[in-house]
Amino acid sequence: MSVSSQRSQEIQPFQVMAILAQAQALEAAGRDVIHLEVGEPDFTTPTAMTDAAIRALKAGHTGYTPALGLPALREKIAAYYGERFAVDLNPARVICTPGASGALLLLAAARLNPGDGLMLADPGYPCNRHFARVFEAHGQLIPCGPEQAYQLDGDRVRHHWQASTKAALVATPANPTGAVLSPEALADLASAVREKQGELWVDEIYQGLNYDAPAHTVLSVAEDAVVLNSFSKFFGMTGWRLGWTIVPESWVATFDTLAQNLFLAPPTPAQYAALAAFEPEIMVELEQRRQTLHARRDYLLSVLPELGFKIPRVPEGAFYVYADASALTQDSLSFCAQLLADTGVAITPGMDFGHYRANEHVRIAFTTELPRLEEAISRLKAWLAAR
Amino acid sequence: MSVSSQRSQEIQPFQVMAILAQAQALEAAGRDVIHLEVGEPDFTTPTAMTDAAIRALKAGHTGYTPALGLPALREKIAAYYGERFAVDLNPARVICTPGASGALLLLAAARLNPGDGLMLADPGYPCNRHFARVFEAHGQLIPCGPEQAYQLDGDRVRHHWQASTKAALVATPANPTGAVLSPEALADLASAVREKQGELWVDEIYQGLNYDAPAHTVLSVAEDAVVLNSFSKFFGMTGWRLGWTIVPESWVATFDTLAQNLFLAPPTPAQYAALAAFEPEIMVELEQRRQTLHARRDYLLSVLPELGFKIPRVPEGAFYVYADASALTQDSLSFCAQLLADTGVAITPGMDFGHYRANEHVRIAFTTELPRLEEAISRLKAWLAAR
Repeated sequence: MSVSSQRSQEIQPFQVMAILAQAQALEAAGRDVIHLEVGEPDFTTPTAMTDAAIRALKAGHTGYTPALGLPALREKIAAYYGERFAVDLNPARVICTPGASGALLLLAAARLNPGDGLMLADPGYPCNRHFARVFEAHGQLIPCGPEQAYQLDGDRVRHHWQASTKAALVATPANPTGAVLSPEALADLASAVREKQGELWVDEIYQGLNYDAPAHTVLSVAEDAVVLNSFSKFFGMTGWRLGWTIVPESWVATFDTLAQNLFLAPPTPAQYAALAAFEPEIMVELEQRRQTLHARRDYLLSVLPELGFKIPRVPEGAFYVYADASALTQDSLSFCAQLLADTGVAITPGMDFGHYRANEHVRIAFTTELPRLEEAISRLKAWLAAR
Repeated sequence: MSVSSQRSQEIQPFQVMAILAQAQALEAAGRDVIHLEVGEPDFTTPTAMTDAAIRALKAGHTGYTPALGLPALREKIAAYYGERFAVDLNPARVICTPGASGALLLLAAARLNPGDGLMLADPGYPCNRHFARVFEAHGQLIPCGPEQAYQLDGDRVRHHWQASTKAALVATPANPTGAVLSPEALADLASAVREKQGELWVDEIYQGLNYDAPAHTVLSVAEDAVVLNSFSKFFGMTGWRLGWTIVPESWVATFDTLAQNLFLAPPTPAQYAALAAFEPEIMVELEQRRQTLHARRDYLLSVLPELGFKIPRVPEGAFYVYADASALTQDSLSFCAQLLADTGVAITPGMDFGHYRANEHVRIAFTTELPRLEEAISRLKAWLAAR
């Protein structure tokens, strides 16, 4: 009984987990570690949202909700699209899920047959191709360098589309690159996918963490696109596990059945916290956080180039700098491991995000306060100078 | 883009959801509906557990935990097996998951290849075969009538095992039958599966809701068995979405990688609530709830036979009576629909739990307080007399 499934053998662990374990071992040994490897901001959930969950718990709301989420929450999410993005959205199309992970689980299970291809930019969030793999489909990785802003575009979709390709999944803002697709770029992608009679899935989980232009949604330019989103990043609810997906109305019944089977319902405490997420005073707090992240980003952009990192595209969103370290290393995994061991600064090697020039890239998360970022840069500078 | 995946087309919605929708429509029209269809007790989470979560939230514990759960929670769960069941368990083998659904997701993904069979008793919890199906394996349903206590046994496992069979999954106490496998029966099953070099997965999510003998675990008699469990039922945490699985130590790294990819981590608030679950005062409260359920079961067992329902096996656990209604109907779906429309009493047709004599069975959940159960029986009696 010792052989695990073929799919599980083909899904590699994240290198960042090994980095994290190494970092924790250093900390346990008394070292001061600066965590620039984690994809989780150093903000807790806004107090008013936590308080909303606490009130619901005290009122005894500890049972299951409907599989697709509380109707009131689905309505609030739909209303948010109207208020913020001027998109008229039927709440029936909004499906709440246990994190965006749950949304991707439903999408992959509901839409991908064995052998199907899911077109993805390389570099990208690795779970995307793994979700395809667990359902016996496959990620179809398209190398996307800085010259194309690390993103798929309409021409590339048309060129690389295969008979087996079922859907293209793009992320905006993207992990690890922070690259944002403009409304025009999204419309171009939607048009290309439509020509191929495929599906466009758009991961908008970093929506709202935009630094150079207002946040937008693909639904403004392509009503037939599928949206994945989450309360984790912009709304600061990582640990609660709550996301959503927006799908064509004709898919909802199938998603309902799959949700009942695969996870029963999203967590109830999270849903009650999220009901408070769209209040004006919360939005003010989240805007302040965005500005804090913006300042951190600008700091890194100002100092990393002089250390030898190239940043050919400014990350316009999310909270990562995907830096080209080719002038410093051709083996970013060893580079990150050695940097951590020598200085206590933890960053993530590019290989966690794909194959394309992964060994020459590192991801630096600005999920830590500015003085710590400055300390990290100071250590990095001294370390590079001494090499 | 209108065709959903083959797997999603093959997974049928639960009839109970249609019953529930019909019940809600009746309620919206002002009718008094008695809910004996839902698999969720009418208890909220014990206050001391909710309070533990609230303290954690106020302290800012709103971020991700490790993918396999808080180390302290894994240790507490392992210690519980020592204290309650005298099983010495390495906490490293305990994997916390988003509900038992998350545990089944990991198990099916990690262990089943396309084409593999998962042996199951019919009747049984329908999600089990659906989890096999979503990973391109299949449920291998073995009809199990009251003469074999609605459960698989060693002989049946040996007889029905096929080259494609990878594992047998049994539930004790079981849904919908409340059937409990004795330690001897579990040892016999483990032995049969071992002979076939297969795996024995044991769903113990109703563990603790036992009425005729103390609760036990398969780990007392088969250290190599896989356990699925949950905080939902006995601990009253349905909406929080927290379960666990216990697997051989050699599987843990693979499960860790899959968990990171499929759901990142179980919900943090739920884990902090669960840290308080094993306190002595909580156990006292849960024991009182068990006694309440016991009294409800005994009431139903005393009145249903005189209405024409046969209950050939007393449900020794869980909170359901799986009643043989063959003297009353050969079409339990219509029977349930008509009963609800005429009387406002909602119960579940057998077809939600498999194929074997499903049309002659109904599931009656005693998740409602005794006076309401009495009212339901009174309505049922009058309705049957008037037919």
